[in-house]
Amino acid sequence: MAKENKQNFVEQIADMEKDFPQWYTDVVLKTKLVDYGPVKGTMVIRPYGYAIWENIQRELDNRFKATGHENAYFPLLIPMSYFTKEAEHVEGFAPEVAVVTHAGGEELAEPLAIRPTSETIFGNMYSKWLQSYRDLPIKINQWANVMRWEKTTRPFLRTSEFLWQEGHTAHSSEEEAMEETMNMLGVYKEFAENCLAIPVITGRKTEKEKFAGAVATFGMEAMMKDGKSLQAGTTHYLGQNFAKAFDIKYLDKDGAQKLAYTTSWGVSTRLIGALIMAHGDQRGLILPPKVAPVQVVIVPIAAKKGNVMEVCAELKQKLESAGVRVKLDDSDQSPGWKFNEWEMKGVPLRIELGPRDIEEGKALIFRRDTLEKQAVALDCIESEVKNLLAAVQKDMLEAARVRRDGRIVYATDLAGILDGVEKGNFVKAGWCGCRECEDKIKAETAATARVFAEGETSKTCAVCGKKAKHIVIFARAY
Amino acid sequence: MAKENKQNFVEQIADMEKDFPQWYTDVVLKTKLVDYGPVKGTMVIRPYGYAIWENIQRELDNRFKATGHENAYFPLLIPMSYFTKEAEHVEGFAPEVAVVTHAGGEELAEPLAIRPTSETIFGNMYSKWLQSYRDLPIKINQWANVMRWEKTTRPFLRTSEFLWQEGHTAHSSEEEAMEETMNMLGVYKEFAENCLAIPVITGRKTEKEKFAGAVATFGMEAMMKDGKSLQAGTTHYLGQNFAKAFDIKYLDKDGAQKLAYTTSWGVSTRLIGALIMAHGDQRGLILPPKVAPVQVVIVPIAAKKGNVMEVCAELKQKLESAGVRVKLDDSDQSPGWKFNEWEMKGVPLRIELGPRDIEEGKALIFRRDTLEKQAVALDCIESEVKNLLAAVQKDMLEAARVRRDGRIVYATDLAGILDGVEKGNFVKAGWCGCRECEDKIKAETAATARVFAEGETSKTCAVCGKKAKHIVIFARAY
Repeated sequence: MAKENKQNFVEQIADMEKDFPQWYTDVVLKTKLVDYGPVKGTMVIRPYGYAIWENIQRELDNRFKATGHENAYFPLLIPMSYFTKEAEHVEGFAPEVAVVTHAGGEELAEPLAIRPTSETIFGNMYSKWLQSYRDLPIKINQWANVMRWEKTTRPFLRTSEFLWQEGHTAHSSEEEAMEETMNMLGVYKEFAENCLAIPVITGRKTEKEKFAGAVATFGMEAMMKDGKSLQAGTTHYLGQNFAKAFDIKYLDKDGAQKLAYTTSWGVSTRLIGALIMAHGDQRGLILPPKVAPVQVVIVPIAAKKGNVMEVCAELKQKLESAGVRVKLDDSDQSPGWKFNEWEMKGVPLRIELGPRDIEEGKALIFRRDTLEKQAVALDCIESEVKNLLAAVQKDMLEAARVRRDGRIVYATDLAGILDGVEKGNFVKAGWCGCRECEDKIKAETAATARVFAEGETSKTCAVCGKKAKHIVIFARAY
Repeated sequence: MAKENKQNFVEQIADMEKDFPQWYTDVVLKTKLVDYGPVKGTMVIRPYGYAIWENIQRELDNRFKATGHENAYFPLLIPMSYFTKEAEHVEGFAPEVAVVTHAGGEELAEPLAIRPTSETIFGNMYSKWLQSYRDLPIKINQWANVMRWEKTTRPFLRTSEFLWQEGHTAHSSEEEAMEETMNMLGVYKEFAENCLAIPVITGRKTEKEKFAGAVATFGMEAMMKDGKSLQAGTTHYLGQNFAKAFDIKYLDKDGAQKLAYTTSWGVSTRLIGALIMAHGDQRGLILPPKVAPVQVVIVPIAAKKGNVMEVCAELKQKLESAGVRVKLDDSDQSPGWKFNEWEMKGVPLRIELGPRDIEEGKALIFRRDTLEKQAVALDCIESEVKNLLAAVQKDMLEAARVRRDGRIVYATDLAGILDGVEKGNFVKAGWCGCRECEDKIKAETAATARVFAEGETSKTCAVCGKKAKHIVIFARAY
């Protein structure tokens, strides 16, 4: 496990065309992003995977703070009775909860839930803190672990414990709370596209797919390379549901006690799964520069000849000073082995540097996303590397967009939806708005309503033929 | 709770000389660092408290990475059976563990512990990952929540859940593992002194006070303003105890299978408690600039007159661009109210700026640590603020050092130890090394052995009069 042998990695990773799930498992384990924890359904996020998460955190955290949010930390354990205060919420989450019944050698008077999400405990504290209209809005985020006991688990995509951020805000009006809900959806979309290079479709979710306890849920959906959709983030307009359940009230200017309007929103370590499946190829990961733990790897060629190692070390120093995350692979493996290893690990750029290159004052740069190689003069290599990193970031988004847009089709009936999703497409279709038709689509095509699509409403529901209320993106989903 | 009224805060905070514990409680609640969670013994770290933790994290994380450590994330839940693998470890931690017995609506086959510390699960994974001597050293840290069910709790100092970092490393030799143990103790000390402005005494702990499962524990002890000691961080040399328990083995160069040597080390949100009690005064917090959420607060005087608010806003902009964390208090409270509020919150510098100051091209700067006020010319205010922040940081450490050094006394017998600690001192005394004498000191003085002190061994044990093996710092402790 710890040392890879010198075989060709291409042979070790399952064929993504033939067995996409096995390809995924091979990639996450072999690149050491993650390992299975001893308790079923748990994962250990290894340093290479965690470094991606740290980059994601930094990018998002900057955006949250720039939009006026503060971080805090709320307790892991929530009294079970809190969940029962919001009827839909308890129905949605109770079946997945892990429960602490004993502590300090004694049985507890009330069992405690490990948070599956924290609306209830934020609600409880907001009720205590909020007194006057002057205290509003309250805009707090937390970075935390949460736990949802799942039957079928896969690293990053669905695990009993995962890491996430959850924003919880309280406002004085419906308009302001809805604006927050939509703003954060916009922040997520901008982040997904500009940092993860993943184009996403954002929109409202159906009643069936919404968060338990919300008035309305909005999601962003990303297409994976097998044509399935991955819900990469959600924002919830909670109306006064939790304000009522937890008595989140304030004294308004007019002297009246009023209930606040609340929102919540979150993204999780699932995003790492999205990165893998939106960009990866048969050689392994392809990471966008903005979140790649290593942006450039330098591989010395004929490392023992002349001053190769010195020049490589100088180049490393230079790039580091220029703010590039760079790794010099000075291990005793062969260049070919190193090429495979770092391609598998998805490093955006590889610089190859040997005695002849140094003589000629150049280096070869390999782009992981396009597999193209070019010679670059050593004396302008920093700016060239920076330009190339920017180009990779941009081109990866564009390539993902082209891939996805080529796989969005339209359907006017159930057969069309089935045909579309079986071919690995997102299918746009009209929907009357009734639960029966939505359930029928799921039963017959294994596709679910992802989000309402923008644009004009199509004329009829693909199932019942009645007047359509919405155009919906249907897809099979993770 | 949410809005403070305009009373004088000095009257609202208990007298620190008369009732230090109440002073502490008043300060942590009134400055909104923390609140009590709904489950007994838990805390909500509020934005102002969490911002201190973020600054602590950033400073430490940089130091960990600079010394070759990587971050990762290991699961919260640990099979109970893991704890029984290391005999001392289970004895030390089992009584404090919170246990999950039910999840997903079913009773679990094996109860799961919420991690009180993660040696066992790191050990389990290191055993799987470690194969060859080439894989060593393994140097991983994690930032996580942990849980220890405590009977008596106080925010930051002792809570059932707290946040911390825990480093876990594996090495090929005793020397290297011991070097890591001492290096990290050095990192903690440098951080405590240069960032928290808290002088610490580092040294080895007695067998009685060591970590359950360690060969040797080293701690850093800080003096609080009541003369009690706070253990602010520990590093543990674990020898091969956990390597044996979890089979952490590797194939060495010579073809033999060998056990690794491991270490662990951690600091927690306790450090925030240390900051409060090492520096605070009757007006509230005094925060060192390096970890203060707000380093400078600007208070406009006669804010509605002339261009006061514009000049204040410009100044804020200027200081922000210079990398200073600055807050402009443009609320409608009176300047006096704001002075009290931000003094209580421990902001290192306050800038007062009114119409006459603007006319004269100057501002008044108030130092929270010395309570001194000085006039500064507006056109060189950025550099002056930076100099003052550096001076506050340095002077706070120096002041704390003088306070502490004036309260280290020597004793040659039990009565001397009792007298010393009753007067709020650290007491240095000789100790023969036997458990009976250590227990007797605790029973009769309520002081514990904090760490072995540097320097020559005194001649005799303060209890039994036999030859002393160590000089020990005895103190009452948090």
